[in-house]
Amino acid sequence: MATSEELFNILGNETRRMILELLAERPRYTTELSEMLDIGQKAINEHLRIMRDLGIIELYVEKQQRGSPRKYFKIQDSFRMEFTISPHFFDIDVFDSEIDPAAILERFPEYEEYRKKVEEARKIARMEELRQIAYGLNKELERISQAKTYIENLISQVRGQCFTLMEGMDLDERERKVLFDIVSSGGKSGIDEIAEKCKIGEEEVKKTLRSLKEKNVIRV
Amino acid sequence: MATSEELFNILGNETRRMILELLAERPRYTTELSEMLDIGQKAINEHLRIMRDLGIIELYVEKQQRGSPRKYFKIQDSFRMEFTISPHFFDIDVFDSEIDPAAILERFPEYEEYRKKVEEARKIARMEELRQIAYGLNKELERISQAKTYIENLISQVRGQCFTLMEGMDLDERERKVLFDIVSSGGKSGIDEIAEKCKIGEEEVKKTLRSLKEKNVIRV
Repeated sequence: MATSEELFNILGNETRRMILELLAERPRYTTELSEMLDIGQKAINEHLRIMRDLGIIELYVEKQQRGSPRKYFKIQDSFRMEFTISPHFFDIDVFDSEIDPAAILERFPEYEEYRKKVEEARKIARMEELRQIAYGLNKELERISQAKTYIENLISQVRGQCFTLMEGMDLDERERKVLFDIVSSGGKSGIDEIAEKCKIGEEEVKKTLRSLKEKNVIRV
Repeated sequence: MATSEELFNILGNETRRMILELLAERPRYTTELSEMLDIGQKAINEHLRIMRDLGIIELYVEKQQRGSPRKYFKIQDSFRMEFTISPHFFDIDVFDSEIDPAAILERFPEYEEYRKKVEEARKIARMEELRQIAYGLNKELERISQAKTYIENLISQVRGQCFTLMEGMDLDERERKVLFDIVSSGGKSGIDEIAEKCKIGEEEVKKTLRSLKEKNVIRV
């Protein structure tokens, strides 16, 4: 799977962002993308290749009623990237897991109604009804985004408090980094995640954990 | 305010992402950033200038107990950027508005407990308690992110349905684009937003809306 580093470099390119935006609507083929974006097929193919190599998109071949089969490109089913930056929160997440609808409906039982409406939408032949469903869903998306921001803000306050506490402690820069990551993640990051986050090796993380333990700052 | 276009170009640079990550923890001064990232002050200052020009970060001067006042950099209070990409969803949002805690607590009354815990954390002198609070908050963040994904998936299904409906309609490419944007946003985007999304001028949007009305596809 691509690292967030690679993804950012990929997404720094406007054409690639536009291709992804179009593929998020539905699968498309090279000529189609080339015409829609008014960019040569060779260049489009090169962008598609780069994104395929990183596992962001994939291709499948579909038989046509007439003529030879056509190669379609789509975003990988399991691909998901989220990026948030705000005054006290910086987070890049790349997932490759599916969501669990049952767990979500248990936590948010009211979503069952949305789900039903969307399911029924398949039989709807009117744009106006689709617009109304989309209206409700967009409102909920706004609400839930705000709630997410709220939780992120609370997390950032806890992080700030962690910094304040550390000021009174006799720790070196590396111990500070590791401790901060442990506390702010709630203690659920593994050695490898701490290493990636703090940009140090796993051996160094282990050494730092030992010294934090010796200083009686953490238990293991 | 910076466009999402400009922001992506800004964030395509690793050093700038690292600077923002550090500033999201707390305000910092140039020498501090330079030492932490092991990058010359001149380069750091140039990155800071670019991000200041775009309104992502700001500076303030703080008197020191000893020596001359120091320039601190922080992420602008009102700045927030969110970026999501998944198989059926592509969205870049740049906000410059504050959230409304009262409205959130009304919709999610259980967050009041989180809020209290974090408030009480100011009096807590123990890392372990902070870690526990962070643990609960991170779990809720995961849950709410999943719920957000769920709603996004429902929206993408409605979008797909909109595409299917349009296939049976006699529309040109521009009418399709505008209609798609109206329906999938729930009809709440203004002329300017439609223009930005469809990458056409506002006059063209108005013209397209008229022709869609004449074809009896929309009412105004």
